[in-house]
Amino acid sequence: MPASPIRKLVPYAEAAKTKGIKVYHLNIGQPDIETPAQALDAVRTADFKVLEYSHSAGNESYRRKLAGYYKSVGVEINHQQIIITTGGSEAILFGFMCCLDPGDEVIIPEPFYANYNGFAVAAGVVVKPITSYIENGFALPAISAFEAAITPKTKAIVICNPNNPTGYLYSKEEMETLKQIIIKHNLYLFSDEAYREFCYTGAHISAMQLTGVDNNVVLMDTISKRYSACGGRIGAFITRNQQLLDTAMKFAQARLSPPSFAQILGEAAIDLPTDYFDGTKAEYLKRRDTLVNRLNKMPGVFCPNPGGAFYAIARLPIDNADVFCQWLLESFAYNQQTVMLAPATGFYGTPGLGKNEVRLAYVLNTTAINAAMDCLEKALEVYPGTVRPTATDNAVAAV
Amino acid sequence: MPASPIRKLVPYAEAAKTKGIKVYHLNIGQPDIETPAQALDAVRTADFKVLEYSHSAGNESYRRKLAGYYKSVGVEINHQQIIITTGGSEAILFGFMCCLDPGDEVIIPEPFYANYNGFAVAAGVVVKPITSYIENGFALPAISAFEAAITPKTKAIVICNPNNPTGYLYSKEEMETLKQIIIKHNLYLFSDEAYREFCYTGAHISAMQLTGVDNNVVLMDTISKRYSACGGRIGAFITRNQQLLDTAMKFAQARLSPPSFAQILGEAAIDLPTDYFDGTKAEYLKRRDTLVNRLNKMPGVFCPNPGGAFYAIARLPIDNADVFCQWLLESFAYNQQTVMLAPATGFYGTPGLGKNEVRLAYVLNTTAINAAMDCLEKALEVYPGTVRPTATDNAVAAV
Repeated sequence: MPASPIRKLVPYAEAAKTKGIKVYHLNIGQPDIETPAQALDAVRTADFKVLEYSHSAGNESYRRKLAGYYKSVGVEINHQQIIITTGGSEAILFGFMCCLDPGDEVIIPEPFYANYNGFAVAAGVVVKPITSYIENGFALPAISAFEAAITPKTKAIVICNPNNPTGYLYSKEEMETLKQIIIKHNLYLFSDEAYREFCYTGAHISAMQLTGVDNNVVLMDTISKRYSACGGRIGAFITRNQQLLDTAMKFAQARLSPPSFAQILGEAAIDLPTDYFDGTKAEYLKRRDTLVNRLNKMPGVFCPNPGGAFYAIARLPIDNADVFCQWLLESFAYNQQTVMLAPATGFYGTPGLGKNEVRLAYVLNTTAINAAMDCLEKALEVYPGTVRPTATDNAVAAV
Repeated sequence: MPASPIRKLVPYAEAAKTKGIKVYHLNIGQPDIETPAQALDAVRTADFKVLEYSHSAGNESYRRKLAGYYKSVGVEINHQQIIITTGGSEAILFGFMCCLDPGDEVIIPEPFYANYNGFAVAAGVVVKPITSYIENGFALPAISAFEAAITPKTKAIVICNPNNPTGYLYSKEEMETLKQIIIKHNLYLFSDEAYREFCYTGAHISAMQLTGVDNNVVLMDTISKRYSACGGRIGAFITRNQQLLDTAMKFAQARLSPPSFAQILGEAAIDLPTDYFDGTKAEYLKRRDTLVNRLNKMPGVFCPNPGGAFYAIARLPIDNADVFCQWLLESFAYNQQTVMLAPATGFYGTPGLGKNEVRLAYVLNTTAINAAMDCLEKALEVYPGTVRPTATDNAVAAV
């Protein structure tokens, strides 16, 4: 079992804080956006005497309302095609457990959400990464790359759309390309759409909107980011494949039920005004612009403009992202402040990739982001492993 | 993946209810005891704006208080030896995932909690049941039975103490016997102590109280039954084995964090008055006595007196428990009422065992238990598959 690349630097951050240094956390996708008070209040005022198990698939009232939410975003499903899970994490685990036997392979464009590795290990599944590249903003790899990776053991492709860690938003054409691949090779498509509400450069195309692949597509979802309710641990496993639903229900029954409190929150959140996301989205957009502009102004730094989610991957003029991120916490401070970043190496399956890239989560307000960027800018000036930019780097940065 | 034997009769119960029949649910361990108001109020009044991820091991404040709770029940551990899990379910899954490789074997005295099977399948682990018998109240099988089942692939023994589904409370001698076996064969001992607070015939001996086996013992716990908080989904994975803790933390980090709301509940529950359990225990004891007395007065029925938890297994004079339990819901009613029981077959790993046994959960008040026993008594009189008692059966019933 691999350690979480996002959390492994935590002890260094704690040490920095005990030295009195303020640490800006751009390393983890914990938004500072307030959980909607209306949804929290539903939990606070819920009237019951016994905190009972819910249905293993989640409360029916919640699932019925959730089907309405999906209809409102253009996804036609009914409540019986939804299994409420303990976070999006469990939805992903159920997918791996139900659709793949130990030794089977799953293809994931890299860099990818590092915890997919953990669930793959738990299910005995082999992750086959295919590389997407910072130069074109981490667009979907070419069909030829998928074809080259597919073997008789390949059972599924996993995408995250919009993407964590790259922020890339897949286009309609790319989704159609994926559809052709899964039809041709009879594969499952697991679509992690945790960040659906946060798209800035175009419309979100759900995998559930692809036609003719009802038995292939599984939607993995969560309320964690949508309503800034990460601690609720409520997600969903959604498919129109009845046999797969039946199998997933056995796993759901073995763990009895998803958490009851946050199901109340999730159900209440569906009643939020339709413009609820506008404010949050505008805030993230402002942060993204601040972050990306600051990054691309630094010598030798290149950060493609993310189309969605609240992450960006930047290439830095450094020798080793793991060393650099640790150094930021251990050996650097600017005005008694520093910044915590996630080395991109942990998001790549191919060893050696991502060594000069970091992931930044723009989950802090623009004042904090600017302060964090001040730190990063100064750090790159004094870090012993900084590689001074060349004309070639600048050319790439202008792409 | 096997279907849950506890939940597979649910559609028949739902059909009975739509016909206007009242169903007494003795089939599932969902207590009707009220969740302590003080603990629920802690959730209702918790003052925060963002429902954040907690630490992957759970809130430190909760773990510190939990260490105090364990001290109060005679278990010496510190907060760093506790990982808060999503229900006891996840603690069991972590144990299987961390300690056993696919193909490894785990020994479990049968009948056992059916969902152990589900977690074993998820981890690719083989369950080797060894039989305990109703005639001696489901005491620990003989050492020779363990010795006969142990192979080079055996990595762990699982016990549930007091036991679900039998209600058996393991004695100090039996716990010492287990200790000798795990030392001799270098095995893990997974001890599921969900029902610790509900012991009626003697003191509870925790596996964590065994000396000299710190690296072998894992305690799997939950607040579900202790505080009637099943829907909270909060449990704990506890061991003094540092390497095992490190491994389990990787699984914990992959799924990010346990549910935040119910951690607040669990932490507040530790502040309940020390006599809190007295009332609940007295109530369960009254129910147990009502149930067991009624059962043993029915012709051909034998139910050993459980020492703990809130379950009993009874042997009925029937041909087939699965058929009988379905028939109770589908084809029987007494005064427009019937009873739902769990066929014991689902709790045995050995095919063919438990065919004339059922599990009863005494999670209803004594009035309801008496009404349910009226139904069962009448049902046995008219059920076509009833086997009329003989002198031999009566002799066994007198044990």
